[in-house]
Amino acid sequence: MRDILDELFDVLASRRSADPNESYVAALHQKGLNKILEKIGEEATETLLAAKDAETGGDAERHALVAETADLWFHSLVMLSHLGLDHQDVLDELARRFGISGHEEKAARSK
Amino acid sequence: MRDILDELFDVLASRRSADPNESYVAALHQKGLNKILEKIGEEATETLLAAKDAETGGDAERHALVAETADLWFHSLVMLSHLGLDHQDVLDELARRFGISGHEEKAARSK
Amino acid sequence: MRDILDELFDVLASRRSADPNESYVAALHQKGLNKILEKIGEEATETLLAAKDAETGGDAERHALVAETADLWFHSLVMLSHLGLDHQDVLDELARRFGISGHEEKAARSK
Amino acid sequence: MRDILDELFDVLASRRSADPNESYVAALHQKGLNKILEKIGEEATETLLAAKDAETGGDAERHALVAETADLWFHSLVMLSHLGLDHQDVLDELARRFGISGHEEKAARSK
Repeated sequence: MRDILDELFDVLASRRSADPNESYVAALHQKGLNKILEKIGEEATETLLAAKDAETGGDAERHALVAETADLWFHSLVMLSHLGLDHQDVLDELARRFGISGHEEKAARSK
Repeated sequence: MRDILDELFDVLASRRSADPNESYVAALHQKGLNKILEKIGEEATETLLAAKDAETGGDAERHALVAETADLWFHSLVMLSHLGLDHQDVLDELARRFGISGHEEKAARSK
Repeated sequence: MRDILDELFDVLASRRSADPNESYVAALHQKGLNKILEKIGEEATETLLAAKDAETGGDAERHALVAETADLWFHSLVMLSHLGLDHQDVLDELARRFGISGHEEKAARSK
Repeated sequence: MRDILDELFDVLASRRSADPNESYVAALHQKGLNKILEKIGEEATETLLAAKDAETGGDAERHALVAETADLWFHSLVMLSHLGLDHQDVLDELARRFGISGHEEKAARSK
């Protein structure tokens, strides 16, 4: 079974070559690495602010934090894609650090 | 099959109640949300700098970027855990946005 | 003689009560602290990227770094103003740390 | 009359050539631009968090915000110094944007 990040990464890869006027992802790649990194900085900032508000807020603030974290991870994936890397490289690194089973299998699959 | 983020999140959850003198994760939770968010800001910054260096560098710079992105995602997971949320909330949000199949199944599983 | 930060801060204070449709500063205050802090996060990110580019670039990249740093300081001043603080509080703190003469005089003036 | 930033910048410039084991500023320069920029990212993050806490807090939180903003400006000055720029370049840019008098005089002095 393929998971959500695998599918999402495929979507991002396919959109990279789309018309920048019609695809946000294609437009980000066309604008280049600095623009992608500016978005990561923005989304990291918005995640921090949303987390502060979620600590004392209710369901709306908690959902806003989920949405900002999704933005942060999404733009991280675009960055990895832009530089020829992918989410599996990051997940393998995390698995290796934490001695998580399935690491080898995943690593093998990513070849 | 459970994926790496599922397993990692379980590890993080189990360490939350460990001795803060012996577990980095337990120590982060004990220090509180601001300390966790400071780490996210730090790791986001280091990710940006590593990405700039990876653009013009070689394998060492590319691996450093993977490691910094892993740090960023890891501390995002600690933040979510600290506030009673988890990675599946974020993945469901991403799946919903991109119309990715398996969303309902994952959403059901996360109940 | 009043210095540039004194004059700039007076300009910012006077614009706080302007029409938000006509003044960027008034609009920032109306949108609230989170919007002001988002701008600080954005400008800090752009400063980092500009500094990386300035390290290897020429006059254009160096001027871009000056412009981004100006944006960062400007939005810091708006943040201070929004919370009833000002640049002199920050300068006094810096003077105190470094044992800089004129500290008392400046501190007295800021009353 | 020279102002605090002028004096502070002179202090920073003189410490650049100090023993890195004895001077924090010299150590930052020796470690290089990435380390200086990491500090700017850290201090920007801490400024955001302090501002959120100052909004609902009292005198202690307000002073903490002043201290974090001072850290942010301080490391900005180190960054400028590292790249052969200075605070006057930034102040001149701000003065030019806002049409502040004294701009020419300051610009002349900075030659």
